[in-house]
Amino acid sequence: MSADAVFLNACRGLPTARIPVWLMRQAGRYLPAYRELRRSYDLLTMIRTPELAAQVTLQPLAEFTLDAAIIFSDILPPLEGMGLELSFVSGKGPVIGNPIERSYDIDLLAAPPATEVMAPTLEAIRLVKHELKGRGTPLIGFAGAPFTLASYAVEGGGSRSYSRVKSLMYREPSAWKRLMTKLVTVQTDYLLRQVDAGADALQVFDSFVGLALGPDDYERYVAPYNRVLFAALVEREVPVIHYSGGTGAYLETVAASGGDVLSVDWRIALDEARRRVGKQRPIQGNLDPVAMLAPWRELRAHIDMVLAKAGAEPGYIFNLGQGLLPETPLDNVKRMVDYVQRYSPAETHKQPHTRTEEGA
Amino acid sequence: MSADAVFLNACRGLPTARIPVWLMRQAGRYLPAYRELRRSYDLLTMIRTPELAAQVTLQPLAEFTLDAAIIFSDILPPLEGMGLELSFVSGKGPVIGNPIERSYDIDLLAAPPATEVMAPTLEAIRLVKHELKGRGTPLIGFAGAPFTLASYAVEGGGSRSYSRVKSLMYREPSAWKRLMTKLVTVQTDYLLRQVDAGADALQVFDSFVGLALGPDDYERYVAPYNRVLFAALVEREVPVIHYSGGTGAYLETVAASGGDVLSVDWRIALDEARRRVGKQRPIQGNLDPVAMLAPWRELRAHIDMVLAKAGAEPGYIFNLGQGLLPETPLDNVKRMVDYVQRYSPAETHKQPHTRTEEGA
Repeated sequence: MSADAVFLNACRGLPTARIPVWLMRQAGRYLPAYRELRRSYDLLTMIRTPELAAQVTLQPLAEFTLDAAIIFSDILPPLEGMGLELSFVSGKGPVIGNPIERSYDIDLLAAPPATEVMAPTLEAIRLVKHELKGRGTPLIGFAGAPFTLASYAVEGGGSRSYSRVKSLMYREPSAWKRLMTKLVTVQTDYLLRQVDAGADALQVFDSFVGLALGPDDYERYVAPYNRVLFAALVEREVPVIHYSGGTGAYLETVAASGGDVLSVDWRIALDEARRRVGKQRPIQGNLDPVAMLAPWRELRAHIDMVLAKAGAEPGYIFNLGQGLLPETPLDNVKRMVDYVQRYSPAETHKQPHTRTEEGA
Repeated sequence: MSADAVFLNACRGLPTARIPVWLMRQAGRYLPAYRELRRSYDLLTMIRTPELAAQVTLQPLAEFTLDAAIIFSDILPPLEGMGLELSFVSGKGPVIGNPIERSYDIDLLAAPPATEVMAPTLEAIRLVKHELKGRGTPLIGFAGAPFTLASYAVEGGGSRSYSRVKSLMYREPSAWKRLMTKLVTVQTDYLLRQVDAGADALQVFDSFVGLALGPDDYERYVAPYNRVLFAALVEREVPVIHYSGGTGAYLETVAASGGDVLSVDWRIALDEARRRVGKQRPIQGNLDPVAMLAPWRELRAHIDMVLAKAGAEPGYIFNLGQGLLPETPLDNVKRMVDYVQRYSPAETHKQPHTRTEEGA
């Protein structure tokens, strides 16, 4: 079975000979080759230059035998096309220079097609697909979910309480509707065009939603927009992965809002996640990214636990619960990918995974 | 039934005529009387001056008909007694000037009795109890849970990834054990002495644990220490409330580690929380603190949902899912307390709560 088939079949809930593995933020700061490039270019330049974005996308594939590539970009650049000023401030993360403060600001937001704004990323997808031809590694495109983007747009960056974005939501329901509708329009177009450019699968990142919202607010203020977004993606017939952070206590509600595969963080056990969304629903995750910083013995214990709780049912993709941290040792990534790929799902009845392996 | 009986009986799972209500951070920055005092004194001075701490503790009782008072303090001052340098930086929150970096730093931590370090808070408890005599309002003492304190001590303040504290945990299990054991010693002594000083109930705050850890790490690295802490508190026979943030996907594991009452954040529905911990276990929560910033109509809808999902079983205490935000309008607090206290648990079969009330 080619790498291509392993990942895409797992996304469709089909049996696979082994468990596919890729890693959120697998292209990025923990790789020496990436850090070398970053000495010459800033982050947004790298995202906006198709050749650089393609190069960075391929870097982890040269280091590890990953079962999928993910295009190098960020969830925030589409906001620039809408009229928001984006910058990345060292040690602080992304900053929106002109965050949304009132209803009127939402009226001024544009909803331009991705071919105008996100052309470099679409071109990077074409370049990567060309490079991957014959190699069989599928390429994942991605975008932010409307709530997580709205959070950045209103808070002006990261937030602890999400009080600005939620206050807008509570105080001005019609403004909220306009904002979320515009975001759905922009993101749907962007995701569909990524498929047209060659993406074999999509991931939608709703990183903040479960940290910010309880289940009732999710159902009322977020789910209707996610449903429209995910429904529009069905026509392209590529698997769509729905990542959400902090939603362990209402994962079934998140699952009902769409996506073929549910991708979960490390705050929920995978067997519990499986139970909540139904055993037929493919699932992805959920190694704690901080465990990747641990000595191999401890990391392996975490991997074993994830594999054991994923169970033997088809439709499981190994991944982290959130992106790789910049300080992740390369050697841990290499050993982890190798370890998971040599593991057979049929072994999961042995809990924990005790098979001997070299160098353990 | 006196206010005293309403709160304490609910903590013990006994039937009450109405639902008791108090609010995390009810003494603090949203109150004009508090802000007035803060013009003359900094936060740590207010905590360390028994007369000021007592005055601030009583301020919300003059404004609202709350069913319990909570002593004005913070979870971090006990760390000062252990040798860590604590300050509160405007706009940034608490900062530890000399965070724990290596195993050796843990050896240097002292574990002094609360009578030395926390004497002002113990004295403030005695002053408040004296003031409350005849009024019947119970007083809640509190302290931080070992993981949340360890997180501050190692990260040096708030954190996004908790990568330092978790790396210590993963890399140096024996150092972790020494750190958590010292914290349990200090906090147990502090909590017991709060009861000796007059506290009628205790709350243990584990605000970060569920944001940082998945269920297996919780069980392995946190639960053993929480069990020792909660077990030691049983002898004093006051109800103990166990607050944890972000643990909705494994609340039963948290519940098994101790506490009479489970206090949950807003990221889980109360009916789901009840199901997870068992209907006999008293529960507290879980209004979203950001909903307190909303117009009354929206706030009321949130309150109705919380009340409906709390159900009609005894053993429920209305509270927020996290502390009141500084920008919370006084009027919302007043209306909310009044609304909850006029609500009868027997009405919960009407979902949502549609009883007419003045000024709605």
